[in-house]
Amino acid sequence: MSEKIRVLVLGTGKMGSGIARLLLQKEGIELVALFARRAERAGIDAGRVLGLDHELGITISNELSTVIAQCRPDIAIQATCSLIEDAAAEIRTLLQHGVSVISTAEEMAFPAAASSVVADELHQLAIKHNAAVLGTGINPGFVLDLLVIALTGVCADIRSISASRINDLSPYGHSVLTTQGVGLSPNAFRQGVADGSVVGHVGFVQSAHMIAAALGWELERIEEKREPIISTVHRETPLVTVEPGQVAGCHHTAVAYRQGRAVITLDHPQQIQPQLEGVATGDSITIEGSPDIHLSGSPEIPGGEGTCALVVNMIPRVLNAAPGLTTMAELPVPAAMLGDARMLVHGRLKP
Amino acid sequence: MSEKIRVLVLGTGKMGSGIARLLLQKEGIELVALFARRAERAGIDAGRVLGLDHELGITISNELSTVIAQCRPDIAIQATCSLIEDAAAEIRTLLQHGVSVISTAEEMAFPAAASSVVADELHQLAIKHNAAVLGTGINPGFVLDLLVIALTGVCADIRSISASRINDLSPYGHSVLTTQGVGLSPNAFRQGVADGSVVGHVGFVQSAHMIAAALGWELERIEEKREPIISTVHRETPLVTVEPGQVAGCHHTAVAYRQGRAVITLDHPQQIQPQLEGVATGDSITIEGSPDIHLSGSPEIPGGEGTCALVVNMIPRVLNAAPGLTTMAELPVPAAMLGDARMLVHGRLKP
Repeated sequence: MSEKIRVLVLGTGKMGSGIARLLLQKEGIELVALFARRAERAGIDAGRVLGLDHELGITISNELSTVIAQCRPDIAIQATCSLIEDAAAEIRTLLQHGVSVISTAEEMAFPAAASSVVADELHQLAIKHNAAVLGTGINPGFVLDLLVIALTGVCADIRSISASRINDLSPYGHSVLTTQGVGLSPNAFRQGVADGSVVGHVGFVQSAHMIAAALGWELERIEEKREPIISTVHRETPLVTVEPGQVAGCHHTAVAYRQGRAVITLDHPQQIQPQLEGVATGDSITIEGSPDIHLSGSPEIPGGEGTCALVVNMIPRVLNAAPGLTTMAELPVPAAMLGDARMLVHGRLKP
Repeated sequence: MSEKIRVLVLGTGKMGSGIARLLLQKEGIELVALFARRAERAGIDAGRVLGLDHELGITISNELSTVIAQCRPDIAIQATCSLIEDAAAEIRTLLQHGVSVISTAEEMAFPAAASSVVADELHQLAIKHNAAVLGTGINPGFVLDLLVIALTGVCADIRSISASRINDLSPYGHSVLTTQGVGLSPNAFRQGVADGSVVGHVGFVQSAHMIAAALGWELERIEEKREPIISTVHRETPLVTVEPGQVAGCHHTAVAYRQGRAVITLDHPQQIQPQLEGVATGDSITIEGSPDIHLSGSPEIPGGEGTCALVVNMIPRVLNAAPGLTTMAELPVPAAMLGDARMLVHGRLKP
């Protein structure tokens, strides 16, 4: 059997650590290096940062070019950021060394939606160095786009699509709670939306464009709305307390228009402890067309755990992909990788 | 813009006609010919067989080689049969002329499961003539396999998979009702299972193998069971009457084993008028793993309408595919084709 698939992980936060731990369990895959942006993590053994009870013999680096040259990865998983502008520098460095990339940066799920200039530059660079780049995750990347697209596959015609994802923010940390406005007054929430500190979900534009591109629809505009979810009850997590009248989360929606008509509606209310007001979490997709399609599940597919798995499962698909930027809609469907990963790869491994 | 994609349809039954009518509505596609096995259809204008109010100027042929040579299709859709042995001769003829194929034959969804010899021969022939072959449909091809596989993509590990499809046979014709044992006594049903006249669903073995192959699982065996659905009420359709104590349909299940354990359970009870006993139709997928996944929808995705759409929507995927036999799990996800089909194709069109 050939050498194992050599994987570099960028990011040692919750997502990067979860991905790295999962890679350690996968047959045919070798975690060759961890990169952290935070300088204080450099020099620490990866086993410690991953919460293992033993050292891994892998020292965390914050010198990306050096670690690539030393460890010769076949592919890198980037879990360091959300925006394409923030992701681009690391992706450039990886591509210049011929390393393919899977990024959890939400805007990389459909890169041209946020910046066609950067997307085009990365696409050309990837082609030049025979590497492929994919952005993915549970959302964007799966529930509100890939799964929607797959279901449209049984339709002869479509009038409109709506998809919603109701989740529970309770397990999340300070930065997520802050960007969703949890614990604010309704006024402070609206102020936060205005000044950009309350962000809501990053990825609606990417999901809508991915769906439209797959169907052959041209979108005229996408309207996003961020509304406070005002609690009527006391809600509490270890990190935040919300009293009645305060904000429990952000109800973020996006509506995409085509020929003057709303054709794609994406709905993603995120809050702590929705069950306290009788709200069940879940994912739901409805297509009005020929035929009508409706599929749903409760609770929602877990975001953190699901993203780690999806990213790892896409490794062989990206190694087999044509050079350049790609999307979930252009690759074969993901599948849980439960056998030897090498059996699935017929391209782009280091000799 | 380049020439339209030239499509030949084999089969003028319910499925072939539905596919042909849909092709007529699609931009960038030209229905160039219809082939019928039934000699009595030869020479009739396609418009009549498709139930249109005008002639199409396309004469139905039952000489496959001749119609290929005359009409030079880029791709053919085969809707003439269910079994690989029955499908193979037409597929061979198409491949020898360099024509790619999408087949609704259930056994073509994962051809090696029914005959690795024929599958290998067709694969080599397709490669030799630079053509691709896909078998697909709602089931097998989508609900109990592709959709299951896509959902496993967000799992790090999987213990077991179960999927069910409860549908209503009321709209179907005599041949389907007969092969499902509708209207028989329970004894006659069991006799029919024994002598092969009661078939149940064709496709479980294909779905189970497609799932296993995607996950990297080796299956030890697949056990199928066909049980009569004995009605407790009077049920009636224009074609058949079922009294209490008689058979309303076939409850067909398949269980696939790996390492001594049941890992894939597929359940497909088919009967007329299930609602008369309070049974709701629907599709449902449950994955026990990390994480658990559950998704369901009611009513079921319609089999006939959905298969016609899916087959047409896969045309660009198959024209872009690598030469040889392929499966739904190896191609990009299907998507409703609502724009010009030519925009999606970058391979294998006749010059």
